[in-house]
Parts: sequence; structure tokens; C-alpha cells
Amino acid sequence: MNPKVVFYSVGKLTKFLGALMGIPCVLSLVYREPDFFPLAIAATVTLLSGYLIERLCSRAKDEEIRHREAFAIVSLGWAIVALFGSIPFLLGGTFSSFVDAYFESMSGFTTTGATVLTNIESQPHGILFWRSFTQWLGGMGIIVLGIAVLPKLTVGGMQLLAAESPGPSPERLKPRIAETAKIMWGIYLLFSFSEVVLLKLVGLSLFDSVIHMFSTMPTGGFSSHTSNIGFFDQAKVETIITCFMFLAGGNFALYYYFLKGNPRRLFRDSEFRFYGFVVIAAIILVTLNLWGGTYKSVWSSFRYAAFQVVSINTTTGFTTQDFDLWPPLSRGILLLLMFIGGCAGSTGGAMKNVRILILLKKGYQELVRLVRPRAVIPVRLGDRPVEEAVIAGITGFFILYILLFLVSSLILMKLGVDMISSVAATAATIGNVGPGLGLVGASNNYAFLPPVAKGILSLNMLLGRLEIYTVLVLLLPATWRK
Amino acid sequence: MNPKVVFYSVGKLTKFLGALMGIPCVLSLVYREPDFFPLAIAATVTLLSGYLIERLCSRAKDEEIRHREAFAIVSLGWAIVALFGSIPFLLGGTFSSFVDAYFESMSGFTTTGATVLTNIESQPHGILFWRSFTQWLGGMGIIVLGIAVLPKLTVGGMQLLAAESPGPSPERLKPRIAETAKIMWGIYLLFSFSEVVLLKLVGLSLFDSVIHMFSTMPTGGFSSHTSNIGFFDQAKVETIITCFMFLAGGNFALYYYFLKGNPRRLFRDSEFRFYGFVVIAAIILVTLNLWGGTYKSVWSSFRYAAFQVVSINTTTGFTTQDFDLWPPLSRGILLLLMFIGGCAGSTGGAMKNVRILILLKKGYQELVRLVRPRAVIPVRLGDRPVEEAVIAGITGFFILYILLFLVSSLILMKLGVDMISSVAATAATIGNVGPGLGLVGASNNYAFLPPVAKGILSLNMLLGRLEIYTVLVLLLPATWRK
Repeated sequence: MNPKVVFYSVGKLTKFLGALMGIPCVLSLVYREPDFFPLAIAATVTLLSGYLIERLCSRAKDEEIRHREAFAIVSLGWAIVALFGSIPFLLGGTFSSFVDAYFESMSGFTTTGATVLTNIESQPHGILFWRSFTQWLGGMGIIVLGIAVLPKLTVGGMQLLAAESPGPSPERLKPRIAETAKIMWGIYLLFSFSEVVLLKLVGLSLFDSVIHMFSTMPTGGFSSHTSNIGFFDQAKVETIITCFMFLAGGNFALYYYFLKGNPRRLFRDSEFRFYGFVVIAAIILVTLNLWGGTYKSVWSSFRYAAFQVVSINTTTGFTTQDFDLWPPLSRGILLLLMFIGGCAGSTGGAMKNVRILILLKKGYQELVRLVRPRAVIPVRLGDRPVEEAVIAGITGFFILYILLFLVSSLILMKLGVDMISSVAATAATIGNVGPGLGLVGASNNYAFLPPVAKGILSLNMLLGRLEIYTVLVLLLPATWRK
Repeated sequence: MNPKVVFYSVGKLTKFLGALMGIPCVLSLVYREPDFFPLAIAATVTLLSGYLIERLCSRAKDEEIRHREAFAIVSLGWAIVALFGSIPFLLGGTFSSFVDAYFESMSGFTTTGATVLTNIESQPHGILFWRSFTQWLGGMGIIVLGIAVLPKLTVGGMQLLAAESPGPSPERLKPRIAETAKIMWGIYLLFSFSEVVLLKLVGLSLFDSVIHMFSTMPTGGFSSHTSNIGFFDQAKVETIITCFMFLAGGNFALYYYFLKGNPRRLFRDSEFRFYGFVVIAAIILVTLNLWGGTYKSVWSSFRYAAFQVVSINTTTGFTTQDFDLWPPLSRGILLLLMFIGGCAGSTGGAMKNVRILILLKKGYQELVRLVRPRAVIPVRLGDRPVEEAVIAGITGFFILYILLFLVSSLILMKLGVDMISSVAATAATIGNVGPGLGLVGASNNYAFLPPVAKGILSLNMLLGRLEIYTVLVLLLPATWRK
């Protein structure tokens, strides 16, 4: 491990973050609100800290970033960005406790959208902007991480995506990341701009349009309203947001080919088809389950089911209705969707559709092998056989995911939280969804939890967002050996 | 598939079952109770049906049993034995509905111990004997299945046990099974006899001693009392039962070596050590969680925790206290134990310790591989590396287990059962445990459920007991091709 290489990159990232804090500063000036000073101080501190760290490690500027350094940059980078990102909340008086401020900031940068903020509407515009903006910035990081970094690091079977990644294929990590990042961010910006325009057209204020775009594109879930998207209660708004949530949950590399005039690549992609299938099947089941009992009309049932299924499955976590009041099957399906999540190469979290698909195929393959023990039947994805190393990576990821889920759930139960709330809070944070069920359900938030629980859940968000392995690998002695 | 070979074996099994029904007949004569005729008629019908089926397929007597026929014999055998086993309950008026009678019989033969019987104490001795006896017979089947049949069929990584199996190693399935069966049944009988003697010594009636031995050795869980083992409320009784439950959850092949004068083989076995570790860790956590709040003294907390942990982890399902009233962590741990279960080669159900252990090692191996991509680090069990095919089998098993768990849970939720009860009822039936949580908790039973749910849960018991694969493989077209 070469710590200077790691800190050089983290310092650069921090400097960049400080500069970006200038945007909410400008906003607070425009609105003439008192959060200008907290934001300006936070921006200055962050900028200077970043500059100092970068400067101290500047000799590592051109040194090679090996796999182990990449893991450290990603994990430490996210943790430190969340740390600096929490300063405005502390200085601005949004939260009096550091744990709360860090939870909210981590929730933003990991695009989770779980909140401990109880008085959202009373916050000044600058703070609300920053809170939502952290998600959008996190989303930028995730796309590049998912498409350019993790496949190279072969994390948890993510090398599957290597063949999908656009741009040239150089040997070293740095140039490849820069190249791919530019293309992907272009698409991300295009979608973001389009959503703001559309939301503005159906009557949302510019501020609300931007704030909710900031939550949709990175599959975050923060809102400027306590009642979330339910505040608007407009089918048009919900339709636009649903479409963009669905887009955000798909593989951005495929959109690149789509925009380059190769739409077949998107629609023939096994993962994208599976993703569509899961969403449609869940919408149908939930609609039928709600119809007649929870909502009188089939249209209302469909409207709320479609929004909530897409919101949870893409791990956005927007809400229009308190789905905690829905019947067991609907709640069960939503809880299950929290584990599936978006596609690889999307801004969505959780296990990802491609992993679930390959695990299901693996289960079937083993069944067939029992009656045809001598036949070689590879697991296939589209027309390509999936390498054994990829399946092993995905298996390992699945095991660690379940393990993390169980340990975190039991710790919450130890703290006295009831079983359903513990399980759902864990699933919703590891999966970067946001709201869970029960005490952390759609009409509640995470504020009531003891600080230890908030710490565990913050760690869940980080682990889940960075595909678990990326963080855990830093605990291995082998990573630190010369 | 050669159906005659299958039915020849199933017929033989049925004939044997009919003969065994004679034992409760004798008992009902001794007690001069009215259940003699139902039992006698059931015995006759079963005996004659078995004889007829065997006779009709007698030409297949010496034909080869290939893998696919073995799968069919096991699956169909269990389903049909449960069918004939339900006749005494129907004729004796224990249940008026066939679904209930079949559920109870399946619960017995799969050594689950989940009951739909609400008036246990009012049943005649013959019926109660038969109900508990079905478990003990199921246990005999399971040991041979686990040690001699499944490893040969390489079901879900069970070939791991092949090296452990005692007896000679012939080519064909039949002689190997017969040889191993005799040795294992000897050990099973020895343990059974010892437990009856010990229970009798501490003051239980002979009938109660036998009935509860019938539930302990196969890790079943039926009792002749509605309040289960709590009825006796004696630490001595609980200690004896706990010890035998623990034994029943261990690998019987290892006991063979132990009794042959090689005890080190037992204590150095990786799975047995892991099994012991899980049980001890769970007892400590539950005791600490109960102490002070639920029970005043540490002794009471330990007493109830130890019994319940061993009972659930071995998938016996005996109860002394209503653990549904315990705090969330204790309930969470018990629910988790329902998935782990006993050791491979035991009478315990669920996933088995060896599979969990290998999955955990696989997760760690994949983590290490990220920093040492070129190193070959096999997963090891003791001093032997585990073959990739075995890990693949276990991975496939794990995936199918989780999938079955999710589908069954969602179906129960669809029927309006609350989330915790649905999840626990599913876990408790696939894992062959017995009692779950909530509506199917320790102080309740499965009687209130709609017939569809009972059908699903009966299927869960069968699938779980036969390691899922064994039954599912019959649904593949390849199994039926010539």
C-alpha cells in the first residue's frame, strides 16, 4: 500500500468538493438567508483541507495506482467526502449532533436518501440544496465506479461489465477512468437537464425541479418536503419521476450505445430485460394486492404501485403513499425489491439485477448437473458463457451481502428495535434505498434511533454503496503488506 | 426413467410401513381404547397396497437403480409414506380434513414436528404413539439418505460426506445402502434406547419417555402434551433431552468412528466444531439478552436459552417457554438458527452447518482473491481442499433454498398472514423445525391456516427434508428422457 498515492487522490477530491460547496453559497445569497456563512465557512475549510492534503502528497502525483490503492481511494474517498459534506449541517444548526450530520451526509453521498431530518420544510434553501446536491455528486461517482473502476478491480463479478464499457482500453487505471467518466457524465448531465425541464413544464418551481432531479438521477430519495413526492399529489409529476428513476436504474454504458444509434444493444441486454421483467411483475402483483382493499379503483392501485415499485427497486426511496399501511404481500414484495436494486453500471444500489440473474441461472445449472453429471453446461448471459471466476465473485458477494445483512439486523434488534424495523432498516441502508418498514417506514425517519444504530447504518450505506468488497478488502493484512 | 424400479421400491416401503402400524394397534389393545379399529384398518390397507404395488412391479426386482430412479424413489417414497401414514388420523377422527391429516403425517415423516392438532391431550394412546412414531421412522430414513444416498447422488455438495461414510464402497447403490443402513440404525437404536432409559429414570412414564424419545432422536418435536416439554418443567428432563437433541444434530458417521474407538475424528471434524461453536455462541447471546429483563436470574435465562437454542438449531422444535415473548434479538437469533440446522449426516434439517461453513469460507476466499488475484487459495475443510464442484453444488443449494423461502413466504403473505408469521412459518417448515414465530409461534400451532397454506407448508417440509434438489430434479424434462 502506498498511502501518498491514496491521499493525493483523496485530497484532490476534497478540494473539488470544497469548490462545489460554493454553489449553495451563491443560492443562499440569492435567497438572502442566514445559511450563507455556515456554507461559506464549510466550503473554505474543505477547499483548504483538500489543497493541503494534495500538496503534502504531491510527490505521488505520477505514481502508479495499483488495485490496492484504488480500493483505498474509493473507500476512504467516500468516507472523507461525507465527513466534509456534513460540516454545513453542523455549522448551519441543521443537526446538533455529529452522528446525525454524518448520517445525513453519508446518506446523501451514497445516494441512499435515508433521513434523520425531522423539520425539512423549515430549512433554508442553501442547506436543502446542499443536502440534495450530495446525492447528485455521489451519483456521478457511482457511475464511474460501476462502469470504469470496479470491473477493472474485478469486484464481486463486476468484470462482467468490462466488455460493456465504452471508450479505449488502456493498461493503467487513471486514463481509462478519465475517458469513461467524461462520456458517462455527459449522459448523466443530459438526463438531469431533461428531467428538470420536464418537471418545470408540469408546474414545479425551478428549485423543486432541481432538488428532485438531484434525488432521481442518482436514485437518492431526499425531498424538500416532509411528505416527499406525495406532497405534489400529481400523476404527471409521478410519471416523469418514475420514468427517470427507471432510466437511472439501468446501465449507463448501454445508454451510450443507444445514443450512438445502437438501440438494439439496450433492448437485447439480458440484465436490462430481467430488470424490466422484475419491475413489471412486481407492479402487477402489488396492483392486484392493493386493488379493492387498500384503494377502491384499479387506477389508483396501479398509480401508487407503479411509483413505489420503481422507486424501491431502483433504490431511490421516493414515496407517495405510506406503504407501511399496505397488506403483507405488497410490503413483502417491496422488502424483497430492496435486495435486488438497479442494474450494474447504474446509479442504483443493492445486489444488482445481473447478479440475481446469474445466481438464479447457477441454481438451475446445478439442478441439471444432477441428471447430466458429465455434460458441460455453462451459465450463459445472452450469447456469451459466463466465466467461472465471475460466478465465484458473485457468489462471494452474495454471501457477504447476506452476512452483513444478518449481522446488522441482529445488532439493531440487540438495541431493542423490533424485528421488522431492524430487518428493513438494514436492507434499506445496505441497498441504499432510504425508507424501510415499521419504525423507519415511509411516514417515519431514522431520527429516533440511538447513535450506535445510526453509526451502524451509516457504515451499511458505505459498504452497500461500494459493493462491500471494496471496503472489506482494506481489513485484510495482505492489502497492507509491501 | 424406469417407473417399475421406482414403484417396486416404493411398494416395498409401503408394505413395511403397514407392518409397523401394527405396533400402535397392539398399544391400543393394551389401553383398551377405541382407536384399535382405525389403526388396524389403516395397517391392513397399507400392507395390502404395498404388497400389490410391489407385486405389480416385481419384474423390476433386480434391475439397476440409476441416479434418476433414486431421486424418484426418495421423493415419491416420502410423499406416499406420508399419504398412508395419514390414514389412522382420518379413520380415528383425529382430523376431519384430509389436508390436516396429510400435514400432520408429512410433518411427522419429515421430522418437522409442526402440528395442526389442537386437542393433543384428548387423543388415545395408539394415535399419539403413531403420530410420534412417524418421526422416528422418518429419522431412520434421513440418516441413511444423508450418509449413504445423497453423497452418491452428489446432491447440493453432499459428496463431501462420501469420504466420511463407513462401510465398504461398492459400485451399485443398493448394497452400499443396505450395508451403511445397518450400521447407522444400530447407532440410532442405541441412542434411542439410552434416552428412554434416562427419561424413565428421572421419573417420566414409559409412554412419555418413548413418545419424547421418538421426537428427540429424529429432531422432530411432537409431544403428547399441548405445553410440550414445558409440561414437565424439570431441569433434569430438559438436560437429558438437550443432550440427545445435540447428539441427534451431529453427523452419525462420526459417532460410528467414536464408538469404534476413534474419538479424535469427531472432535477434530470441522463441521462438528462449527456446530458446537454456533450452539454455544447462540446460547451465550440469548442468555445475556434474556437475563434481567425476561427472567430475573441468570440460571433461568441460561436454562431456557440453552434448551431453546439447541432445540431450534437442531431443528427439533421442542419448547419449554413461549419464546415469542422474548425480546427481538433472541427471536432474531432463533429465526436465524432455523436456517442453519444440524450437521450433514444427522437427523437435523435446514441448510446444515457444513454448507454454511463452506459458504463463509468461500466469501472470505473471494475477498482475498481481490488483493492476490494470481494466488491459488482453495477453500479448505480441515486439512483437505474442497473441490470446486462441491462448492458449486452448495452454492446452487443455497440459492434454491433462499428462492424457495422467498416464494413460500410471499404466498403466505398473499393469503393475508402477517410478515413475521409468514417468514417464520416458511423457515420452520423448509428447515423441518416445527414452531415458528407470531401466529405459528411456540404457544400456537398451524391449525388456523387456510388449506392452501397447509398444502404449501407440507410441500416445504418435503422439499426441505429431501435437500430440495432431490424433488426439483423430477421436474426437469432431462430426468424423464430415455
